Amino acid sequence: MKIDLPSLEINYKNRVEQALDRFLPSVADEPSMLHEAMRYSVFSPGKRLRPFLTYCVGKALGASFDVLDYPAAALEIVHAFSLIHDDLPAIDDDDVRRGLPTCHKRFDEATALLAGDALLTLAFNVLARTPLSSPEIVIKMIDHLALSLGSTGLIGGEFLDIQAERKVQEEAGLLKISEWKTASLIQGAIVLGALASPDCDEALVKPLGAWGRYLGIAFQIQDDILGVEGDPASLGKSTDSDRRHQKATLPLLKGVDFAKKMRDQFYGLAQEVAINIDLPLEELRQWSQKMIFRDR
Amino acid sequence: MKIDLPSLEINYKNRVEQALDRFLPSVADEPSMLHEAMRYSVFSPGKRLRPFLTYCVGKALGASFDVLDYPAAALEIVHAFSLIHDDLPAIDDDDVRRGLPTCHKRFDEATALLAGDALLTLAFNVLARTPLSSPEIVIKMIDHLALSLGSTGLIGGEFLDIQAERKVQEEAGLLKISEWKTASLIQGAIVLGALASPDCDEALVKPLGAWGRYLGIAFQIQDDILGVEGDPASLGKSTDSDRRHQKATLPLLKGVDFAKKMRDQFYGLAQEVAINIDLPLEELRQWSQKMIFRDR
Repeated sequence: MKIDLPSLEINYKNRVEQALDRFLPSVADEPSMLHEAMRYSVFSPGKRLRPFLTYCVGKALGASFDVLDYPAAALEIVHAFSLIHDDLPAIDDDDVRRGLPTCHKRFDEATALLAGDALLTLAFNVLARTPLSSPEIVIKMIDHLALSLGSTGLIGGEFLDIQAERKVQEEAGLLKISEWKTASLIQGAIVLGALASPDCDEALVKPLGAWGRYLGIAFQIQDDILGVEGDPASLGKSTDSDRRHQKATLPLLKGVDFAKKMRDQFYGLAQEVAINIDLPLEELRQWSQKMIFRDR
Repeated sequence: MKIDLPSLEINYKNRVEQALDRFLPSVADEPSMLHEAMRYSVFSPGKRLRPFLTYCVGKALGASFDVLDYPAAALEIVHAFSLIHDDLPAIDDDDVRRGLPTCHKRFDEATALLAGDALLTLAFNVLARTPLSSPEIVIKMIDHLALSLGSTGLIGGEFLDIQAERKVQEEAGLLKISEWKTASLIQGAIVLGALASPDCDEALVKPLGAWGRYLGIAFQIQDDILGVEGDPASLGKSTDSDRRHQKATLPLLKGVDFAKKMRDQFYGLAQEVAINIDLPLEELRQWSQKMIFRDR
């Protein structure tokens, strides 16, 4: 899905792409094709949503951009990993992603599988090298990222998503999928930005995390709505994928109107939490509104 | 492959299996089937070679077993991840592993893919929680493990292995596969055991790592020799897999005698390094000899 970014967001986007270029292995080094597949997936056109969140929160909390580059890039790297594995024939079997052939279509299945594995691993190298004076915080970031990804995070959400094709889902089950599959990493992006900041005290991590989690659920519901309503060309992916797999998304199962109501409800919850967070996060507030109510 | 273990090794084996049971998510927790697949693969009968190396080296360097449980378990967890993905149809397409159906045969392909991803992620949670007083060391362990696994480690080796099916390989290329695919994690097991130890000084990490790397190459060559010579029943896996995939292993391409010569050469290199390591590592020396020259 394409979104017009104001200049500030474009700066974040450029910034994280430069960091990614530094952190990703060169195609000049062996194994060249594996590195090419890793770079192909990471550098395919994307919103860089998760890095944006990390930079925004970190900036509001006085973090240095040279430090934030590490968690921001790690978040984008694991996002790329998740898309590659998600698109594989064993899972969604998608041919197009961000307007380009998916990794296993451009290369092959084995290369895509391993490129995903290598990216997931690389994210931990990147995080481990975050130039913070407190190594305890670096460990906290690593632990939090791994939890956001694990069997009760993004990967667990992906698993529930597949299961949902196989059995009737209740509303709560569908929301769990959005929460784990998408919201856990949105939350992770915000929490890692906060942790990397000198002005972050422990009491802030919880509400910031909750804000990210509610936003993430609303964001995924909107994604599912666009999957039903949207125009495949502007979304840049095969939107019939959900239908083809009989994926049990909220709008497909309960109707678009119901889904919009739920989206608004979670966006409301996010705002309720945000109102008590006394930080200069206007940029993020505006952006999240635009994001949740995007039409493509 | 089955190996008779003296009682000391059995103690290490029991110890790491108890640690794994604590660290792995319960099947009582959602998503139950994903957790079941993770446990199925980790607890299938195995030698627990990598944990053994971690315990041995750590013990020789005065580490506490309560600390060593973390890196030892993390090593076994990533080993299980690598076997699951290795066995997938996109890579080796193997049906049997350790005498049991492979993960994707016992469950399904999507579940196996995600169980592997979740295990890889979990290993970093486990390492991040290593109860060491120095957080800098914990970060070093995480960085080292991720490097051992990445695109110039185990995962890169797996990639080269697939490539080797597609083009003629020279001896150096074949050795690179053994080095990356197998030796990097054997080296990792030894280095992590050393890092977790109070008596480990920086100057010891390099020779211990080199020792592990040479042993790992010899170990993989022996594995390939057994793949050509061995009895499938006692190896507990489909040994025709290498032939079926026209895998370019050293014994298949250059003959068993040549492979044995190379194995002995790397074992010799390992011994040369080991002789200068002034540590009570008799247990490990004896064991490595037995391991490299095993006949099943």
